[in-house]
Amino acid sequence: MDSVFAVIITIGDELLIGQVIDTNSAFIAQELNKQGILVKQRIAVGDQWDDIWHALNEAQKLAKLIIITGGLGPTADDITKPLLCKYFDGKMIVHQPTLNHLTHIFEKLLKKPMIERNAKQAEVPDTCQVLMNEKGTAPGMLFEKNNIVFVSLPGVPHEMKWLMQNKVIPMIPGKFKTGHVVHQTLLTAGIGESFLAEQIKEVEEKLPTHIKLAYLPNYGMVRLRLSGYGFDKETIEKEVSDYFSQLKEACKTYVAADEDIPLHEVIGKLLMERKQTLSTAESCSGGYIAHLLTSIAGSSAYFEGSVVCYSYDIKEKVLGVKHDTLLKYGAVSEETVTEMVSGALKLLETDYAVAVSGIMGPGGGLPDKPVGTVWVAVASKEKIVAQKFYFRFDRKRNIELTSNAALNMLRLLICG
Amino acid sequence: MDSVFAVIITIGDELLIGQVIDTNSAFIAQELNKQGILVKQRIAVGDQWDDIWHALNEAQKLAKLIIITGGLGPTADDITKPLLCKYFDGKMIVHQPTLNHLTHIFEKLLKKPMIERNAKQAEVPDTCQVLMNEKGTAPGMLFEKNNIVFVSLPGVPHEMKWLMQNKVIPMIPGKFKTGHVVHQTLLTAGIGESFLAEQIKEVEEKLPTHIKLAYLPNYGMVRLRLSGYGFDKETIEKEVSDYFSQLKEACKTYVAADEDIPLHEVIGKLLMERKQTLSTAESCSGGYIAHLLTSIAGSSAYFEGSVVCYSYDIKEKVLGVKHDTLLKYGAVSEETVTEMVSGALKLLETDYAVAVSGIMGPGGGLPDKPVGTVWVAVASKEKIVAQKFYFRFDRKRNIELTSNAALNMLRLLICG
Repeated sequence: MDSVFAVIITIGDELLIGQVIDTNSAFIAQELNKQGILVKQRIAVGDQWDDIWHALNEAQKLAKLIIITGGLGPTADDITKPLLCKYFDGKMIVHQPTLNHLTHIFEKLLKKPMIERNAKQAEVPDTCQVLMNEKGTAPGMLFEKNNIVFVSLPGVPHEMKWLMQNKVIPMIPGKFKTGHVVHQTLLTAGIGESFLAEQIKEVEEKLPTHIKLAYLPNYGMVRLRLSGYGFDKETIEKEVSDYFSQLKEACKTYVAADEDIPLHEVIGKLLMERKQTLSTAESCSGGYIAHLLTSIAGSSAYFEGSVVCYSYDIKEKVLGVKHDTLLKYGAVSEETVTEMVSGALKLLETDYAVAVSGIMGPGGGLPDKPVGTVWVAVASKEKIVAQKFYFRFDRKRNIELTSNAALNMLRLLICG
Repeated sequence: MDSVFAVIITIGDELLIGQVIDTNSAFIAQELNKQGILVKQRIAVGDQWDDIWHALNEAQKLAKLIIITGGLGPTADDITKPLLCKYFDGKMIVHQPTLNHLTHIFEKLLKKPMIERNAKQAEVPDTCQVLMNEKGTAPGMLFEKNNIVFVSLPGVPHEMKWLMQNKVIPMIPGKFKTGHVVHQTLLTAGIGESFLAEQIKEVEEKLPTHIKLAYLPNYGMVRLRLSGYGFDKETIEKEVSDYFSQLKEACKTYVAADEDIPLHEVIGKLLMERKQTLSTAESCSGGYIAHLLTSIAGSSAYFEGSVVCYSYDIKEKVLGVKHDTLLKYGAVSEETVTEMVSGALKLLETDYAVAVSGIMGPGGGLPDKPVGTVWVAVASKEKIVAQKFYFRFDRKRNIELTSNAALNMLRLLICG
């Protein structure tokens, strides 16, 4: 039995001029992967008839499943549907269930008259099987030709996701005989890619060809991912799991998590287990640490809140940083960040607190405190640890690096 | 003179299993676009010799410039360099300036011994022109064959960006004769895509074929982008600008900005012009609004800070929300959010404040307040406006929609 390959085609000029970042492809790839379907290639093309046509022709040579997103909207730049109609030799017909669904949306939910442009969204090529889109107005479509399955989905992320999960994934076992793909991921912190590679060299060298190791460096951390592919589920799971244990052992001092979760989720789990609470006092990170922590469902169980103190005034008035400290040492100093963290711990009454203060750039640098200088303090009721960092990147990256550095210091404090 | 087309090839298994989202392509596309080079296609392939080779062959048929990113790291899954060496019939040689640069990084900056694995990063095919990478360890490479330019860049975003801006873009005028691409983008808020299309139908219908209109819906807003392509810079700029004015006029009641900036930047500009200040009191958005506002350089001029009040306690203790209000109406209510916004205005002493409280999901819904229920209040010293929203998506999207809804209410309040 051969592997089943897929190609993802995303359509839209906005992808080629860089105005939007394509998050759909990553989601689709993840979902297919879980089904044992390997994505061979992702192609992004513009809203141009010939380019889309060419991409479809090329994709057919590489894959048995082709997922197409985008170009199904109600406006004139959306040409995917007429193109697919022609590509699969169909003619346009009204799909009554979709028309009923659209009528319901406009009359009942939006309470606006349905205009011609919207009603046309209920038209589909008669050569397709309609994938009813309960989350939006553009129906998904499935075509089959020369033993290849083509699926066309809207580009709106939440509609595409719903259709993938409810219409596309469920039909896969009936159409393809797939193998099993197993991934296991280790999150490491505090070691660079090359040094990590040296640590795990012996494990890496003995990996069989059907198990691959990838290094995924990101903002001061490196994820290590083992991916195995095989036809017997239990065998491949066991094999990957064995190598994963060896990998973990080889770099154990740097392991932050033995699953593919971000550091803020690691923190959440540690606090949940310990039934402890956390607050933050954020100057330069501007609320980003609080945002990361609260992006996890259920975080209200351990996260109490944050004081984002961009100004001197708020540092003093809300967190109780002494005026003299700010005057004498400045906002970006060990002294200030230590008072901030103590202030947060006291005001927000939590078991742990994190405080950061720094200069994220591009402006605001000082001779003795250049852009990228950051002080971080983490505290429990017993202990305060402060550390200085120096990040040399752009504002966005400096904010992310600051937040991850602070969360890693907190992790080390919690774990003792 | 013909248009100059480019293809972007991104390499890495992580792109095909969906473990990372590709942000590099969007950046590269934007930069090329500014130079009048049109991206014809973007292709993502895995760390597989044959797939990369095939992608290079195919890209040659479509483009005069091929930008390749990824696969240049020091670890075993990085095969781009040996592959390019073979593809362009070269042999590996040491590039002395890169070796010196690496030695400097390890000895002076990292203060760690340089290992064999790192030193090998200074090796390049003798058939390439090296693009010195001052921001990292993997050098960029440029090859030319059959009148086509191939550029290979590391996949680490800040290294890739630096090389694009400092090495790739500057060589473009010497190698290609390009036309001019002009984009103008309008940010609209408070109207859906189809209704917007009706509003601007007359302008859209008379656009010439070399000027295209795209609709980019995103979290409760729609951006309208006009893109014109031509060989005379002034002519195409004037043409696009004329149609842009007509477009703006046709939907003027919904225009939030007449440039391609996000809503939080619109707010920043409004406050800067008026020399006024802002604070936020965030429950369900968990600091995301503060993060958006502070992601803009210079935001300390108008943004004072935020109280992220995830718990009842902090709403009472820090913002002064009355205990009775919380008991009687609950945290997600007009009464609570109104007291939160007043509390923020007073505590943080700003001209404006925004407060949000809601249920982002997936858990936490109540019979009369299902997941997605959000109350937003915005206030100046003279006026408080509160509004209820109901978002029906996942946690991440609900947080983004909440933040944008709050910022749009604030915009309307500021603009009167």
